[in-house]
Amino acid sequence: MRLGAFLYPTGYHVAAWRHPEVPADAGVDIGHYAELARTAERGKLDFLFLPDSSAMRGGDTAELSRTAIRYVAQFEPLTLLGALAGVTERIGLTATISATYNEPYHSARMLASLDHISRGRAGWNLVTSQNPYEAYNFGLPEHPEHGVRYARAQEFAQVVKGLWDTWSDDAWVRDKAAGRFFDPAGVRPLDHHGEHFSVRGPLNMPRCPQGHPVTLQAGSSDTGRDLAAATADVVFTAQHSREQALAFTEDVRARAEKLGRDPEGVKVLAGVFPFVGRTRAEAEEKVERLQDLIDPQVGLGLLSSELGHADLDGSDLDGPLPDIPVSNSGRSRRDLLVRMAREEGLTVRQLYKRVAGSRGHWQVVGTPESVADELADWFHSGAVDGFIVMPPYLPGGLEDFVDLVVPELRRRGLFRTEYTGTTLRDHLGLARPGR
Amino acid sequence: MRLGAFLYPTGYHVAAWRHPEVPADAGVDIGHYAELARTAERGKLDFLFLPDSSAMRGGDTAELSRTAIRYVAQFEPLTLLGALAGVTERIGLTATISATYNEPYHSARMLASLDHISRGRAGWNLVTSQNPYEAYNFGLPEHPEHGVRYARAQEFAQVVKGLWDTWSDDAWVRDKAAGRFFDPAGVRPLDHHGEHFSVRGPLNMPRCPQGHPVTLQAGSSDTGRDLAAATADVVFTAQHSREQALAFTEDVRARAEKLGRDPEGVKVLAGVFPFVGRTRAEAEEKVERLQDLIDPQVGLGLLSSELGHADLDGSDLDGPLPDIPVSNSGRSRRDLLVRMAREEGLTVRQLYKRVAGSRGHWQVVGTPESVADELADWFHSGAVDGFIVMPPYLPGGLEDFVDLVVPELRRRGLFRTEYTGTTLRDHLGLARPGR
Repeated sequence: MRLGAFLYPTGYHVAAWRHPEVPADAGVDIGHYAELARTAERGKLDFLFLPDSSAMRGGDTAELSRTAIRYVAQFEPLTLLGALAGVTERIGLTATISATYNEPYHSARMLASLDHISRGRAGWNLVTSQNPYEAYNFGLPEHPEHGVRYARAQEFAQVVKGLWDTWSDDAWVRDKAAGRFFDPAGVRPLDHHGEHFSVRGPLNMPRCPQGHPVTLQAGSSDTGRDLAAATADVVFTAQHSREQALAFTEDVRARAEKLGRDPEGVKVLAGVFPFVGRTRAEAEEKVERLQDLIDPQVGLGLLSSELGHADLDGSDLDGPLPDIPVSNSGRSRRDLLVRMAREEGLTVRQLYKRVAGSRGHWQVVGTPESVADELADWFHSGAVDGFIVMPPYLPGGLEDFVDLVVPELRRRGLFRTEYTGTTLRDHLGLARPGR
Repeated sequence: MRLGAFLYPTGYHVAAWRHPEVPADAGVDIGHYAELARTAERGKLDFLFLPDSSAMRGGDTAELSRTAIRYVAQFEPLTLLGALAGVTERIGLTATISATYNEPYHSARMLASLDHISRGRAGWNLVTSQNPYEAYNFGLPEHPEHGVRYARAQEFAQVVKGLWDTWSDDAWVRDKAAGRFFDPAGVRPLDHHGEHFSVRGPLNMPRCPQGHPVTLQAGSSDTGRDLAAATADVVFTAQHSREQALAFTEDVRARAEKLGRDPEGVKVLAGVFPFVGRTRAEAEEKVERLQDLIDPQVGLGLLSSELGHADLDGSDLDGPLPDIPVSNSGRSRRDLLVRMAREEGLTVRQLYKRVAGSRGHWQVVGTPESVADELADWFHSGAVDGFIVMPPYLPGGLEDFVDLVVPELRRRGLFRTEYTGTTLRDHLGLARPGR
């Protein structure tokens, strides 16, 4: 089983920052992140996963000022991972990078650099920008439309990987006596001329330990799944039933196979939002403690944001969800939530409470044994290769998972007791692309 | 006296990588950089300075394959400084960033992130791209012309600093009981709409420990000096006489004053390329040892590059420098070198040997006492506030400076024995801009 740790600074739950055991300045506390990284590594987890956005997510400052999770206050992930590389030895380090507002040369170079610094532990989560406020920070009145963003992302990944292959692994002879630093036969420019990018290359850095740092992708729409099938080593998905997860996995693998890839080279990990207690009652208390801390203004604002910045002002909190138009923001989250509200007959308040916690991810509440049972069930059915654990609050939620659930998974032979390799590709069972 | 350490991976001398004591894979060896950072911190130096380019510098692969200094193989500086923040406590960490091919929102965010991670030790060297090969990696057939690059850089700095001021220092109340994470009165968007950038802001990160990370600039042309006077806390300059350095410093300070700045708020540091031996003969041996390792093909290629990629093919190595046309690349280096060749009557070979070593910076060769005498002479005359030390080879050249010259400067009361502050601004005697 593969396990990643998803690290919002204070935890994934919207009210986590108000939890008495959570440092409220977690987003810019390097000591906090170092502790999280060491805890995850103590659990022998595969990787850390850092979500990101290049703008605060939302426009109403009064509402934003009551939340800590909407990218208002946290480190930039690549600089942070540089620092975390130094306090860890084995765990993978993955950063979210938007193809919409970055240059592939810079991103390829920073990721290769992180891979060298960490000796083969780098990865990236390739996204297209969903948060409409990002556009304003890069000179645009709104994002390019959905199809254009995905086409750009596909070309972005192609250029990044192409740059990683501009040097052969054996190009660096460094022969002092002969004065030959590298072998000219080992380098070739990329000479990419595409719709969105023209990039000559080569990358000005030796090929990195993993050849290609690991690519994660979280496509969920039809276009998103195609992008994942074409580019991803690891697909991160929000699913809330084993059957849906299995259908998703089969679909993404089939798309990958159609593109000529080995479907087993695509690992599918589902988000899991776990509350773990020594007893079920203790776990449920942990849920209620956080749910009670949700501010209604924050809950409603968050729901609006998740629905593509739908206008919910004046909605009856205890009535059904009104009609939500399709917008130019991420479509897949909107569809998932509207379907959930309709199927389960949720009120606006119930939906925002649902959203404010797991935000569409699979919530699991119980004892170490029962949580391990549920994870094992998905895993054994072939629905997923593992999970990205989204601790509700930090560091406590991660400690609970590492100290209570991981030992239970080990007892069942489902999870490693020691790292057997040194790179993130080793941990994930992914072959190293040669050149 | 202020002292920075300029770190090319193998050292500043073009043949350093061939030196028997230099690790030839230095550019991607994190252990090497950690050792350099600790050595510089042991000497209580003000900061590390990382040069950078987003492309190999030059197009002839056969020639490039014989050199290690032309940005063919080294870490990306911001990821590297993230890692070095963790192995140091006090020393400043500065990265070169080109305004020509970066987005100010990303750069502002990464620098603020590094400032938080390092608890107030970040700085940046704002440059315009000179290396024509960078353009090809960002979709352009050549750089925007000189004036446009500088106008963009000036606006880039304005946006970056504006973003650093989008939050007040006391905005982050983090009141768990009241549910107030920040005070909405403490944030304002930037709403910049300029010639080159439109950026709304705010930055999605609390104001950083230094308020503004330290800005370095190395402008030398008329336009470049204006940029330095308008934006820089520290000006880095190549000078080879005390009188020229003094004239430069007075000129930059006068320009800053004309813009309404306190001229003492602009620190001027000259590059120094030191060979230090316990005797003068030992120092000279160190010079010769490296000069003897220069490959003629590399020397000529380097000279061409420094002259704005002038065509030197077929030049008589033992004849005078032919006429060199003005190009769209950096003008100031070309002018300096052509003047040097004419004034001193240097042959092409003599010029490339001069260039291949110090590349226009001030070369000082001698004992700890004589080197300290020369530095003290420039410093006491008011020509400069200090130096950026460019060790010819690493780690040896930095160790020589720290272990031999720094103690001599201390004996004269010219350099600190302990850090008295915690931030780079503290070290440099620069006020922290409030907001």
